[in-house]
Amino acid sequence: MNDVFSLLQAHRSIRQFRPEPVADAVVAQIIRCGQAAASSSNIQAYSVIQVDDHNLRAQIAQLAGDQDQIRTAAIFLLFCADLHRAEHICERQGTAFVDGMTEHFLIANIDAALCAQNCVIAAESLGLGTCYIGAVRNHPQEISDLLRIPAQAYPVFGLCLGYPAQDPEVKPRLPLSVVLKKDHYDASTEEDGIAAYDEEMRAYYGQRSSNSKDSSWSQQVAGLVGREARPHMREFLQKRGLNRR
Amino acid sequence: MNDVFSLLQAHRSIRQFRPEPVADAVVAQIIRCGQAAASSSNIQAYSVIQVDDHNLRAQIAQLAGDQDQIRTAAIFLLFCADLHRAEHICERQGTAFVDGMTEHFLIANIDAALCAQNCVIAAESLGLGTCYIGAVRNHPQEISDLLRIPAQAYPVFGLCLGYPAQDPEVKPRLPLSVVLKKDHYDASTEEDGIAAYDEEMRAYYGQRSSNSKDSSWSQQVAGLVGREARPHMREFLQKRGLNRR
Repeated sequence: MNDVFSLLQAHRSIRQFRPEPVADAVVAQIIRCGQAAASSSNIQAYSVIQVDDHNLRAQIAQLAGDQDQIRTAAIFLLFCADLHRAEHICERQGTAFVDGMTEHFLIANIDAALCAQNCVIAAESLGLGTCYIGAVRNHPQEISDLLRIPAQAYPVFGLCLGYPAQDPEVKPRLPLSVVLKKDHYDASTEEDGIAAYDEEMRAYYGQRSSNSKDSSWSQQVAGLVGREARPHMREFLQKRGLNRR
Repeated sequence: MNDVFSLLQAHRSIRQFRPEPVADAVVAQIIRCGQAAASSSNIQAYSVIQVDDHNLRAQIAQLAGDQDQIRTAAIFLLFCADLHRAEHICERQGTAFVDGMTEHFLIANIDAALCAQNCVIAAESLGLGTCYIGAVRNHPQEISDLLRIPAQAYPVFGLCLGYPAQDPEVKPRLPLSVVLKKDHYDASTEEDGIAAYDEEMRAYYGQRSSNSKDSSWSQQVAGLVGREARPHMREFLQKRGLNRR
């Protein structure tokens, strides 16, 4: 449709980076783009920690599935859902902060995600590659301790930025007919689309040396939600004062 | 920095729309851009319901704070965090679905938000205006019933799209120094930046006939987190089988 559509549809995660640095002034502009995203009631309930220190990076990498791109990316940003700032503002305003609300927790997560996605688009428009790191939730308490993230805030995901040293293909997505519904949610028409997608992904992985090539997308999804993913998250969040009620 | 940066930084929510329609083929391309966003382990745990039916729109508007733009926007999209599809896939694969995990709930919300933000950028690149509707969480059970959204899925937010009939200014955001931290979270330096932002927002609202002009941003934030926002959300989500453990 236009250059922006082409940019958005060309996204793929980059996990191998060239050593070229990315200037702090560029990172600042990227995050200003992130801040321009919508925020629920303009509360801006997120913070971004740019981790430059090599030792901290190495420790985060180890805590987040030993993903080497955390070490090698020019820039590593940790996005935090952040109600600590709001709590602090309450203190200064003499208002009692109401903690633990599921709704506030949702707002903070969504604010952080909208901000991050704008950062991704801005970065990719400069030719940078990006990779979200959900594995910071493998050991969120340890990462919070390491970076002194206070209660009422937590690391939602990391984001690696840097100049790509690889050129992977765009990964196919579910047929639009599976994801987009008209007027009512209707799952009865999904089966054919999912079967077609399983075939498409089989071909996609078949051309790669991926571990995924022996299983279909449906099998992968069943593997993901057929187990207790990160079972510490509930208690971790509640200890932070988040998502309790 | 470039045209994409300009586009991202020019965002403002649009709540008044011209009556011009937006073709379904354009909506389809916008949602394809949304699908191109990163998804945790490629699970794609979201669905989008395009609500065209006038009667359904009117009912959603009433359930979501009587916001007129839900009725008048050319296009209204409801973004659902969706683990129902994954549960259904488990059934077909003969795998037991593990419900209620906080981590799966987070993944679905983040996937939905990244998709939606790409849709916003795509739409704005065409000159369309957008407005997120978090107020679909005012009455999420009623909206789920109305659109037959099954258990393991729920409406996270709506998104209005259409040609703008207004030209509001871009709303200032917090100084970068408040939001971006280096190596460690440090709140001690935020106070000056927040005070400056309170001043900036006072001037911004002072030029408008906004109800917000009698209070500072800090007072607004304290008002938001100093009360039990949408206290039904926890129980609603748990009844859906989400965010229980």
